Amino acid sequence: MEDSLEKKLRDSVWVCHSLFERGKTSDSSANMSFRHGDRIYITASGTCFGTMREEDFTVLAMDGTPVSERKPSKEWPLHLALYEKSPEVGAVIHTHSTYSVLWSFAKDLKENDCIPDHTPYLKMKLGTVGLIPYEKPGSPELFSAFRERVGNSDGYLLRQHGPVVPGKTVMDAFYCLEELEESARIAWELYRAGR
Amino acid sequence: MEDSLEKKLRDSVWVCHSLFERGKTSDSSANMSFRHGDRIYITASGTCFGTMREEDFTVLAMDGTPVSERKPSKEWPLHLALYEKSPEVGAVIHTHSTYSVLWSFAKDLKENDCIPDHTPYLKMKLGTVGLIPYEKPGSPELFSAFRERVGNSDGYLLRQHGPVVPGKTVMDAFYCLEELEESARIAWELYRAGR
Amino acid sequence: MEDSLEKKLRDSVWVCHSLFERGKTSDSSANMSFRHGDRIYITASGTCFGTMREEDFTVLAMDGTPVSERKPSKEWPLHLALYEKSPEVGAVIHTHSTYSVLWSFAKDLKENDCIPDHTPYLKMKLGTVGLIPYEKPGSPELFSAFRERVGNSDGYLLRQHGPVVPGKTVMDAFYCLEELEESARIAWELYRAGR
Amino acid sequence: MEDSLEKKLRDSVWVCHSLFERGKTSDSSANMSFRHGDRIYITASGTCFGTMREEDFTVLAMDGTPVSERKPSKEWPLHLALYEKSPEVGAVIHTHSTYSVLWSFAKDLKENDCIPDHTPYLKMKLGTVGLIPYEKPGSPELFSAFRERVGNSDGYLLRQHGPVVPGKTVMDAFYCLEELEESARIAWELYRAGR
Repeated sequence: MEDSLEKKLRDSVWVCHSLFERGKTSDSSANMSFRHGDRIYITASGTCFGTMREEDFTVLAMDGTPVSERKPSKEWPLHLALYEKSPEVGAVIHTHSTYSVLWSFAKDLKENDCIPDHTPYLKMKLGTVGLIPYEKPGSPELFSAFRERVGNSDGYLLRQHGPVVPGKTVMDAFYCLEELEESARIAWELYRAGR
Repeated sequence: MEDSLEKKLRDSVWVCHSLFERGKTSDSSANMSFRHGDRIYITASGTCFGTMREEDFTVLAMDGTPVSERKPSKEWPLHLALYEKSPEVGAVIHTHSTYSVLWSFAKDLKENDCIPDHTPYLKMKLGTVGLIPYEKPGSPELFSAFRERVGNSDGYLLRQHGPVVPGKTVMDAFYCLEELEESARIAWELYRAGR
Repeated sequence: MEDSLEKKLRDSVWVCHSLFERGKTSDSSANMSFRHGDRIYITASGTCFGTMREEDFTVLAMDGTPVSERKPSKEWPLHLALYEKSPEVGAVIHTHSTYSVLWSFAKDLKENDCIPDHTPYLKMKLGTVGLIPYEKPGSPELFSAFRERVGNSDGYLLRQHGPVVPGKTVMDAFYCLEELEESARIAWELYRAGR
Repeated sequence: MEDSLEKKLRDSVWVCHSLFERGKTSDSSANMSFRHGDRIYITASGTCFGTMREEDFTVLAMDGTPVSERKPSKEWPLHLALYEKSPEVGAVIHTHSTYSVLWSFAKDLKENDCIPDHTPYLKMKLGTVGLIPYEKPGSPELFSAFRERVGNSDGYLLRQHGPVVPGKTVMDAFYCLEELEESARIAWELYRAGR
């Protein structure tokens, strides 16, 4: 049975606060969304995960048409591309988490599987992570680079920018994002240690 | 006098939240248990230390037979192996704490005493830490590798995976896990510094 | 419409607590202020971001004359220099955030743009960051070095000391400070990795 | 005017929780005390900063004779040595903070001033920090090594163990400990970077 709108909003606010308070994102740079029926609920433009409230989620139709008045995060086309990819995608989280960003600067990353599996959990939970070339945040060039590669992997790392992760539910997307950041941290530390 | 079930559950939920909020574990990858009479209370499959509630603990008999309906963490055989080892074991915690995982990649670790005593507290509180070779999480191969080595040391580090730590009480297991992770951090930082 | 004094004080206390609890500042070394009408509200001397209360803000006239009895942070002239620079400055935050301090020790920094744009957000949100030469905290020499360079950039990094960041509102200054610290962290880690 | 016993206990519990929650100490390894009249209030043996309550402070006379039933932290002689050193010492905090411990492994430290002043605040707030040679925690050898050097500096770093810091008040000792740990972190990171 699908979760109620109330539960999805409650989980989303918890996820925003938890990511912020534990240093997985800072300032107003992250955004997230979930699907409910034929609507997308997404964090409004300029919001901060640290102060997020349920009323800070604004509503889009599945084609991106605004349903509420409040302006959505400018990265909304990244979210839509994932909901269109599969009906199994129920939520999407995008952050600028430090170790994912750092890892995107490493050399010789594999385009469709850019996080090495030093530990097995990321592949078990999420799958492969594709690398999206750098384009300006919020630009049509970024959205088009993302759409071109959305079918090639299960999660995504935007170069010099941060991860974009889908999940079946809000909590599932949260677990996958956390595992991606932790795997990037292990990869970065081992790379620094020459291992 | 033994603690009441209520106190053990209350301490356990506090420990889960505290480890999660202070960055010692992420997403839904950790699990913990305690013994009460002839029953084992263990975190249910798919639970997250950040949202743990008392009702997320499920119950097993001492031979692993489920007593409650909810599915236990798939790592339950690691826990059982420790309760069988000694009647003094009252609680077990397993996490994917970052520095313990990183340290498991260091070279030339001693199999039955893999954390160096740069500081004296880990040996004073817990004792030696044995290294368990890599096997897939949740696999019979992991459980059998663990059982073979359970008598050789006081705590355990699963390679590319994380620590498993017993304690007389929930709080004692928590203190030992924290000291192991802190000792692994000191070891990792000194190793990186060439000391 | 301008925010009420009540909202500015509430936001300020939230910002202080949030920076402290997430490790962006420690002990009693940070200070912050906001403008309200022709008054500056600034954290009192000796206060700690971790225990900050609304009544810990003291009041100055725009020329620095004390309006309340309580002594302001000794760094108040840094704040005044920014309010004088532009009527658009509505708040100022100064911390000793670790990575900003570390980055101030890096070699060959550009005097008027000392944080490299490995990621694009700092330039998009705040602009350039100028480097202020080391002078003793709270000294007339520091204030005069700061005033001389206040027109050359949008934010500031005091060498061996920490960032000073203006914003249109309390929350805007907070977002800019966080982005500066995060950019300094990325810069420091990449510099350490030889990238 | 001296603070009331109620305020000192309230501040102490806040300090314990704050140090623990922000990762400046782990498990049950830290201890702290304050002076009130001719009594020393000190954290009881086996307590954890994360769960500290006012009733976890036990009472000693100025010569170390127990006044309450509960056993004090075994490091109580370090605290007493500081209260005897000067009537101005009103509180003492001892932790195993990570960067202070790491820094105690650095080479060629100055015995009576072991933390370099890359930033000026530690000297402005606390003064010099003396290095105490390694002896087993809680041992008469450690207490005697500490007493011999207590007059040579203002704060102390026990090798392979952690800082011991006095302050005029509970909050003052807290500020000094935080500044010591932050200075050790800056020193460690710059040392690692070859600066």
